[in-house]
Amino acid sequence: MAIHWLLIFIICCIGLHLSNAKYTPDWESLDSRPLPKWYDETKFGIFITWGVFAVPSFSSEWFWPHWKAKHPNQDIVNFMKRNYRPDFTYADFAADFTAEFFNPDEWADIFKASGAGYVVFTTKHGGGFPNWPSSHSFNWNSKAVGPNRDIVGDLAEAIRNRTDIKFGTYYCLSEWFNPLYLKDKESNFTTQNFVKTKTMPDLYELVRNYKPDIVWADMVDDMGPSSYWTAKEFLAWLFNESPMKDTVVTNDRWGPDCKCKHGSYKTCTDKFNPGVLQKFKWENCMTIDRRSWGYRRNSNIEDYLSVHDIISTFASTISCGGNMLMNVGPTKEGKIMPIFEERLRQFGQWLKVNGEGVYGTVPWSHQNDTVTKHIWYTKRKMDSKGTVVYVFLLSWPTDTVFKLGAPITSQQTEVSMLGYPDKFIWKAGPGGQGIYVTIPIIPWNKLPCEWAWVLKMTHITN
Amino acid sequence: MAIHWLLIFIICCIGLHLSNAKYTPDWESLDSRPLPKWYDETKFGIFITWGVFAVPSFSSEWFWPHWKAKHPNQDIVNFMKRNYRPDFTYADFAADFTAEFFNPDEWADIFKASGAGYVVFTTKHGGGFPNWPSSHSFNWNSKAVGPNRDIVGDLAEAIRNRTDIKFGTYYCLSEWFNPLYLKDKESNFTTQNFVKTKTMPDLYELVRNYKPDIVWADMVDDMGPSSYWTAKEFLAWLFNESPMKDTVVTNDRWGPDCKCKHGSYKTCTDKFNPGVLQKFKWENCMTIDRRSWGYRRNSNIEDYLSVHDIISTFASTISCGGNMLMNVGPTKEGKIMPIFEERLRQFGQWLKVNGEGVYGTVPWSHQNDTVTKHIWYTKRKMDSKGTVVYVFLLSWPTDTVFKLGAPITSQQTEVSMLGYPDKFIWKAGPGGQGIYVTIPIIPWNKLPCEWAWVLKMTHITN
Amino acid sequence: MAIHWLLIFIICCIGLHLSNAKYTPDWESLDSRPLPKWYDETKFGIFITWGVFAVPSFSSEWFWPHWKAKHPNQDIVNFMKRNYRPDFTYADFAADFTAEFFNPDEWADIFKASGAGYVVFTTKHGGGFPNWPSSHSFNWNSKAVGPNRDIVGDLAEAIRNRTDIKFGTYYCLSEWFNPLYLKDKESNFTTQNFVKTKTMPDLYELVRNYKPDIVWADMVDDMGPSSYWTAKEFLAWLFNESPMKDTVVTNDRWGPDCKCKHGSYKTCTDKFNPGVLQKFKWENCMTIDRRSWGYRRNSNIEDYLSVHDIISTFASTISCGGNMLMNVGPTKEGKIMPIFEERLRQFGQWLKVNGEGVYGTVPWSHQNDTVTKHIWYTKRKMDSKGTVVYVFLLSWPTDTVFKLGAPITSQQTEVSMLGYPDKFIWKAGPGGQGIYVTIPIIPWNKLPCEWAWVLKMTHITN
Amino acid sequence: MAIHWLLIFIICCIGLHLSNAKYTPDWESLDSRPLPKWYDETKFGIFITWGVFAVPSFSSEWFWPHWKAKHPNQDIVNFMKRNYRPDFTYADFAADFTAEFFNPDEWADIFKASGAGYVVFTTKHGGGFPNWPSSHSFNWNSKAVGPNRDIVGDLAEAIRNRTDIKFGTYYCLSEWFNPLYLKDKESNFTTQNFVKTKTMPDLYELVRNYKPDIVWADMVDDMGPSSYWTAKEFLAWLFNESPMKDTVVTNDRWGPDCKCKHGSYKTCTDKFNPGVLQKFKWENCMTIDRRSWGYRRNSNIEDYLSVHDIISTFASTISCGGNMLMNVGPTKEGKIMPIFEERLRQFGQWLKVNGEGVYGTVPWSHQNDTVTKHIWYTKRKMDSKGTVVYVFLLSWPTDTVFKLGAPITSQQTEVSMLGYPDKFIWKAGPGGQGIYVTIPIIPWNKLPCEWAWVLKMTHITN
Repeated sequence: MAIHWLLIFIICCIGLHLSNAKYTPDWESLDSRPLPKWYDETKFGIFITWGVFAVPSFSSEWFWPHWKAKHPNQDIVNFMKRNYRPDFTYADFAADFTAEFFNPDEWADIFKASGAGYVVFTTKHGGGFPNWPSSHSFNWNSKAVGPNRDIVGDLAEAIRNRTDIKFGTYYCLSEWFNPLYLKDKESNFTTQNFVKTKTMPDLYELVRNYKPDIVWADMVDDMGPSSYWTAKEFLAWLFNESPMKDTVVTNDRWGPDCKCKHGSYKTCTDKFNPGVLQKFKWENCMTIDRRSWGYRRNSNIEDYLSVHDIISTFASTISCGGNMLMNVGPTKEGKIMPIFEERLRQFGQWLKVNGEGVYGTVPWSHQNDTVTKHIWYTKRKMDSKGTVVYVFLLSWPTDTVFKLGAPITSQQTEVSMLGYPDKFIWKAGPGGQGIYVTIPIIPWNKLPCEWAWVLKMTHITN
Repeated sequence: MAIHWLLIFIICCIGLHLSNAKYTPDWESLDSRPLPKWYDETKFGIFITWGVFAVPSFSSEWFWPHWKAKHPNQDIVNFMKRNYRPDFTYADFAADFTAEFFNPDEWADIFKASGAGYVVFTTKHGGGFPNWPSSHSFNWNSKAVGPNRDIVGDLAEAIRNRTDIKFGTYYCLSEWFNPLYLKDKESNFTTQNFVKTKTMPDLYELVRNYKPDIVWADMVDDMGPSSYWTAKEFLAWLFNESPMKDTVVTNDRWGPDCKCKHGSYKTCTDKFNPGVLQKFKWENCMTIDRRSWGYRRNSNIEDYLSVHDIISTFASTISCGGNMLMNVGPTKEGKIMPIFEERLRQFGQWLKVNGEGVYGTVPWSHQNDTVTKHIWYTKRKMDSKGTVVYVFLLSWPTDTVFKLGAPITSQQTEVSMLGYPDKFIWKAGPGGQGIYVTIPIIPWNKLPCEWAWVLKMTHITN
Repeated sequence: MAIHWLLIFIICCIGLHLSNAKYTPDWESLDSRPLPKWYDETKFGIFITWGVFAVPSFSSEWFWPHWKAKHPNQDIVNFMKRNYRPDFTYADFAADFTAEFFNPDEWADIFKASGAGYVVFTTKHGGGFPNWPSSHSFNWNSKAVGPNRDIVGDLAEAIRNRTDIKFGTYYCLSEWFNPLYLKDKESNFTTQNFVKTKTMPDLYELVRNYKPDIVWADMVDDMGPSSYWTAKEFLAWLFNESPMKDTVVTNDRWGPDCKCKHGSYKTCTDKFNPGVLQKFKWENCMTIDRRSWGYRRNSNIEDYLSVHDIISTFASTISCGGNMLMNVGPTKEGKIMPIFEERLRQFGQWLKVNGEGVYGTVPWSHQNDTVTKHIWYTKRKMDSKGTVVYVFLLSWPTDTVFKLGAPITSQQTEVSMLGYPDKFIWKAGPGGQGIYVTIPIIPWNKLPCEWAWVLKMTHITN
Repeated sequence: MAIHWLLIFIICCIGLHLSNAKYTPDWESLDSRPLPKWYDETKFGIFITWGVFAVPSFSSEWFWPHWKAKHPNQDIVNFMKRNYRPDFTYADFAADFTAEFFNPDEWADIFKASGAGYVVFTTKHGGGFPNWPSSHSFNWNSKAVGPNRDIVGDLAEAIRNRTDIKFGTYYCLSEWFNPLYLKDKESNFTTQNFVKTKTMPDLYELVRNYKPDIVWADMVDDMGPSSYWTAKEFLAWLFNESPMKDTVVTNDRWGPDCKCKHGSYKTCTDKFNPGVLQKFKWENCMTIDRRSWGYRRNSNIEDYLSVHDIISTFASTISCGGNMLMNVGPTKEGKIMPIFEERLRQFGQWLKVNGEGVYGTVPWSHQNDTVTKHIWYTKRKMDSKGTVVYVFLLSWPTDTVFKLGAPITSQQTEVSMLGYPDKFIWKAGPGGQGIYVTIPIIPWNKLPCEWAWVLKMTHITN
């Protein structure tokens, strides 16, 4: 008799298990998972590139591989010659990664002011230095050497305590110089020693300990197929069983076969910004310092994007279905430098005025206008106002009558500028195609914002 | 016969020499020296506070005395506890003053872009660390420890090679902890050991080697009368015999008895900005970082003056007869941080548009307006256009008709805005007093500049 | 049909394998392997304790665990407080492990002069820092941080190039703070993650790369049975297949179940020196600095064994069947300090005179004498001279007639002192038991050596 | 009336004062001062060479000038290249002069055990770094940078508290790189800026603060006549008025014109050991490390004098009327290394046995023997035993009968060995000249000491 009950119990368990296991470890199944809504709606995230490279803080976060390359970067070679003893190693820098001013509360407040909906933090970059006390990187992590802190944990906590911002973890699967990885690579990825003793244990540890809303994978060399990385198995676990299974999102850098193909959303290449609508949700990961993701002590103001640059990139990105993930690189002391803080706060001020055209919008049928250049569109479907289209003007119209070719208006159509109280006068374009908007001459002190402006058009019929 | 000629020659030489010695070492004579024209005309200088304090780069350039004070600054005490061994001394910091990115050409280019007419560089601050290989500070100077460079010399050369900017030297007469100074102080300044073996030899060396256009004296404790410092004798030499005798200017901090009283111009207190016209030429030495003159690694964006703040301060300063000496603090690596560079370049852009109302102008009969607030005036006497008055608007007029109470117009009066092509419509105020200017509504893209604007009024009769 | 051939093939393979595999992975088989002759014959080895602990160079090589213990060593706690910032970590020391004076040729020459037959070098101590570029300790090894050298390789090469000394590798199986080890330990050693991804890969790499003559295992906590460590499997490979299979020896510290029980020879506890004959070959691993194995910068002369202490320990050790493995701790710079060098060279001078009684000898039937104290014996079986017994006098005889109770002489017996030309007069003790030797009064300048002397007695019958 | 008394009082005071001023500032007067007895009687002093050079601790205490010389020491140049950034300066070393283990009590105890009667400590070496908080070397002294201690004061106090050892101060008058000195030198010593603002103020401060028993002057370049150094004036003050006026002694290095000519005693050249009796009291300043006075981290045992070397040097020195000042160089951490401690303690043990022939003795008519080599003599005039002559045997006599040619014996003459209980048998040499001593064969364990032995002969008639 007992055996029957046992059998039933087992069947139940399997059943329960199956009911959890929505996704099977194949791309078809994994890609079928709907993108959690929050991601698309937030549009804007902040990327933070931090690690031991913040100690030399020179050239870029690729300091190490560029220094030790077959054809090394001569600037780096000279920098080392001028400033260090010849036998100084990259790992020797770690003891000087002091992070004495790292105040995650302060970071959280800056991020909040920037209008970002999520943060993606480098838990481990290509140098393999985990910014948390990884169990799989003995004495080469931020608790063991340098900061003597669980940076990932401290930042996650501050962000969750002080903001509604989602917390994501960047994790670079491969490492430039890890001998275990190099050996697997030598075997043409037929061995998986590195993945099994390092990458996967780390990733499971990260997800379990820090419950990230984004698992952002990367590779230093675009090598090792996703099967080598056991990406599908990990993602199946992430989507089926992990503590974040319902809300987590992941990107596409799980192997050269995945890039721009699989994942909750696609990042394709760095600074991906195609300018035309994509069929998939994507992310433009870009950086305020044009030349580096990690902080450079010797950067100049010309290296930094202006707020106008940032807004231009942002408008084109969201217009074409992307999110923008904008990077800042903290100093080795743990500060987000004033120039970065200024950019973030200025962009936040702009978003405060223009967020209506950003958060929760979707691409419209047109991304650019057919008549006027430097225009980007988004739209929002609203019950009472029909389709609302937002028009991003990256420069102030030079003519009093501002002509757009794309929108087809209706009689109820109203035109206004976000942050400005009055409606604008308009008329339909020739043959009902397009719209002619009369731009009022608004004195400086009445302008709702600087840098770029957003027109709002209701009851658009296309 | 020959002896007669020799005698005549000698007499001539003495005569010549006497004719050189225009000034005697007393204030009446020294103060009678006319201020070399260039100083007043340039209006704007850059102050650079750099030294060993850039290594801790915490709290301010007064790090050392605030740390070692009877009632020490607890932030500094805690900073030291958290980051250094207990026996670490201030002088121990010097070896880490590396200046590896110090590129004086780059600095010179930034200063040029800022529109500054002169630079004042800290050759020695209160810590007594000379930024040149002083012969009177063995192994405690920038050539002997840390940078291993003649910083003063390198900067002077770059500025002279690449710009027309005048080069001035800040030199702090007293030192917080120099035992020779402290002993003189204990003697109630009846002994002069410090002055005779350190201060004066240094100052003569500085002037002879670097030929500064400004000799900017300072004191850490506002103590020691100018007679203790042998200031009058030094200035007499400076004005009579030094290589810079014809063009050099000096400030007033040569003793508490001099401050705001004697010297080519007066600085009185730090950030002196009286808001009313002064009878003497003065200088507002102020700093972009509100809380410090030396660079602080842990500063935030809110600590930095905005460009609008800077222009406001500048307008009020020059309107009342002052020059503005604006400070930046380089990093221990030798960089002027992007946030400083941005401020300097933005201010330079503004000056490019509005320099006509600045350079070579003089205070007008009014400094502020009698009717409208936040207005500052300067003037220029021009042959063809009569008296030209410049009106600095720190915010855009809120009303279409902009009313000023001070200017008395003439029939030839023309009103325009610097950088804007068209004349403005105006009419005289009630009873001929003041002026009503119609401010055109200029679209954003036609504005000549941001932050503040300058009206130009010709043929003003008062 | 096919299956038959396959069967034959399999049997052949097993046969081939078995023909190599003299030893099976069980202690009975492994312990049956004869001890390679060289080990017993050399008697004296040098142990070298070097690693990151040479940077603080304080307290001992257990600096780290004693610092971080539940009840920490207060001397260490205070040392850290006085000399480092509070967040300084143990791993932070590594960058300062500079080894700039490490000259393995110089070390080899000193070891040669000491008379040592082998060297055992710490390839990895309890802190887990490999002194070679281990593939399993990324950025925590002597090539990646600090010395930037393959220390093990460089030393092995120098010793082999310049001497006939055997080269052994000390490897500490467990590590105080490695999270993988701690997790296995938590599991009560039911998991073997650490052993399989770290310990064993390291050991195979070590043996393959450096071909050590001794594989010296150790544990930091005397925990984890040898089955956890897969010791038997490793040793079977070492004895059957490794490049050193014929000559390699290993010690007994492969688990608490092995200690003093299994292995080529036994070390039991540190400084094991039982004073009575053991049934097994053993090794007394001891250290010149009484209080530490690692170098201590603050050691005093009283902490160091005198040469007399060393010889006393040595005589008792070899008399009872042991080898002596004497430790020196190099400085972080890579020097064997003069005091160590002096001891090693002095001991070498003594061995030059007295080596006949040491190298290749075996324990005699007696270890101590029955009548006179502080006497130790060794013997040599020689064809022409019968049994030769060596008598180690640790102090000069106080009486002219020196009485020994143990040796039973024969008529051919001759008595002499090693290094002294003349025979000594003797007579048999009462009843033929023992011997009475007349010690000549040898002037200071005729003494063959200092510190201790060895009598040689031929044709002894017991 | 009163005025008479006052006059008398004044005259008395002048008289008293005059009676104090025994010495006038000329060599004849200064040299007429008798050498305070303690100096000659103690025979043996310890020299301590410590300073910033202990940080590189390479090559020698002349590291700096040899590095920066026209023809630099290539070993140093290479050492710097291998271990430091190119711009590293000598003064940069100072911050790493940590002295964390400097325990002056421990030093005092070692010195006491060595049998030394005085200590001479480097208060300032040629690099100009004062080991006390000199008022004339701002931020370049041991209180301001590095140790953060008054080393001179702490050591003086420990020595006075724990021993009867006299405390002397070494002070190097000139400095390799002090610009004030170099300028005086350039002027061919016609200016005295350096002496008046640095050397003399320092020396007065030293004497007043630390009350040294010895003022040991030195020069780095043997230049600048004693008149430049105002040596005579200083010494007149030292002998007439200083707190140490009655007991202080000084050496002869007050100018090239003084060396080997004037001063309480002469040092002439380093390691001066003429081997023949001198007419003046002299000092052999020598060092245990043959190649350096400062500590060298990379020294080998062969660089260190053996105790036998030391005793040989000592015997020849005191025999010829010298004192021996033997140098040790502490580490940057503040330790006297075990090898130095061993030498000092061994020498102290030897002195404990043989001090009778050393302390308070004087040169005899002969210094060496006329017949036997390697013999040195001292003598003592004793009431009851007539003239006692001490014979220093640097090696054990090879013959039973030991022949000396110099002593002329009397009938009461007794011969013994210091530390040995029995009298020796002797007879007069041929014709009453010299002596034949029968050396008993003393077993090892009865020898009073190692290394060298002293015979005592009473009632010697020459």
